[in-house]
Amino acid sequence: MLICGIDPGIGRLGYALLEQKSGKSRALQFGCLETPSTMPLPQRLLSLYQQLTEIMTAQPAAVAIEALFFNKNVRTAFSVAEARGVVLLLCAQRNIPVFEYTPPEVKMAVVGYGRAEKRQVQIMLKRTLDLEELPRPDDAADALAIAFCHAQVAQFKQRLSQGGGVTV
Amino acid sequence: MLICGIDPGIGRLGYALLEQKSGKSRALQFGCLETPSTMPLPQRLLSLYQQLTEIMTAQPAAVAIEALFFNKNVRTAFSVAEARGVVLLLCAQRNIPVFEYTPPEVKMAVVGYGRAEKRQVQIMLKRTLDLEELPRPDDAADALAIAFCHAQVAQFKQRLSQGGGVTV
Repeated sequence: MLICGIDPGIGRLGYALLEQKSGKSRALQFGCLETPSTMPLPQRLLSLYQQLTEIMTAQPAAVAIEALFFNKNVRTAFSVAEARGVVLLLCAQRNIPVFEYTPPEVKMAVVGYGRAEKRQVQIMLKRTLDLEELPRPDDAADALAIAFCHAQVAQFKQRLSQGGGVTV
Repeated sequence: MLICGIDPGIGRLGYALLEQKSGKSRALQFGCLETPSTMPLPQRLLSLYQQLTEIMTAQPAAVAIEALFFNKNVRTAFSVAEARGVVLLLCAQRNIPVFEYTPPEVKMAVVGYGRAEKRQVQIMLKRTLDLEELPRPDDAADALAIAFCHAQVAQFKQRLSQGGGVTV
C-alpha cells in the first residue's frame, strides 16, 4: 500500500510517499513544495495544487494529513487551513481516502510518546525507515512521520480485522 | 462589469452576481451553496467547488470575498479558511482576479458605517439595489454586500484614474 503524508502549508508544504509492504515501511520520496511569498495567494494555492497533482500521479491508496490544531499564530493557522482545503479537494477529486492525525498521535505512533521533540521523531524515523540521514527539512520530516503514523494505524486495524487480536 | 461576491463557508457558502453598468449596480442572482454535515470534509469541499464552477460560467470579471478575521469560534474560522482555499484556487484556475474585504469595510461601503448591524446592511441593499424584499438568507446577503462593496471601490478607483478627483 502506498501512503502519501502531507504537512500542509502555503509557503512550504511537506509531502512524503511511503510504501507499506508485508509489515515493513519504506520511504520512497519526501520533500517540500514551495511557493514564493511575493506571489498572490490564489496563485500560490494553484501552484501547490499543480505540484501536488504531479505527486498524486503515484496513485497513493490513502492520504494522511495533519489535523488542524490551535496554534499560537492564528494567521499562520488560517493559511494552513486554506492549503488544507486545496489538498482535501484534490483528494476528493481523485477519490483518495483522507485520514487526519494530530501531532501528539503522530509522535505517539513514531516515538511511542505523544510529547516527543521534533528531533526525537526524526531520529526514530531515520532508524525505523533505515534512512541514510535525518529526514530534512522539518516539513518533509513531519509529512513522513504522518505517513508512517497512518501505516502503523492501518496495519493495526488490519490485524484486528483478521481476528488476530493484540498482544498487550 | 460582472462581480461575484462570496461569503465563504463549508456548510453554507453565500454567493451573489452583481452587474455594474454606467455607475449603477444590479443584483442578477444571489443565494447559498450548501453541503450536508453528514458528508466527509473532502467531499463537501468538492461539492462546493463543483457548484461554484457552475456559477463561474457567468464569467465574472472579479471575485470579491470576505477576508479572514479573528472569530470567537476558531474551529468555524478554520473551516471557513478551508472553503476559502477552494474558492481562491478556482479563481486562480479561471484567471479571475480576487479582492478581499473585511466586514467593517463592507459595512462602510453599503451603509456608510463600519459597525452597522446585519439588518441595516440588508435594508440598505434592498433600497440601493431596488430589491423586492430583504436579501435572504444571511450568507447570501453578505455575499451581495461584498460584491456591492467591490463595485463601489472599483468605481471609485476608475474615477480616480480618469483624473476626475474626489469631491470631499
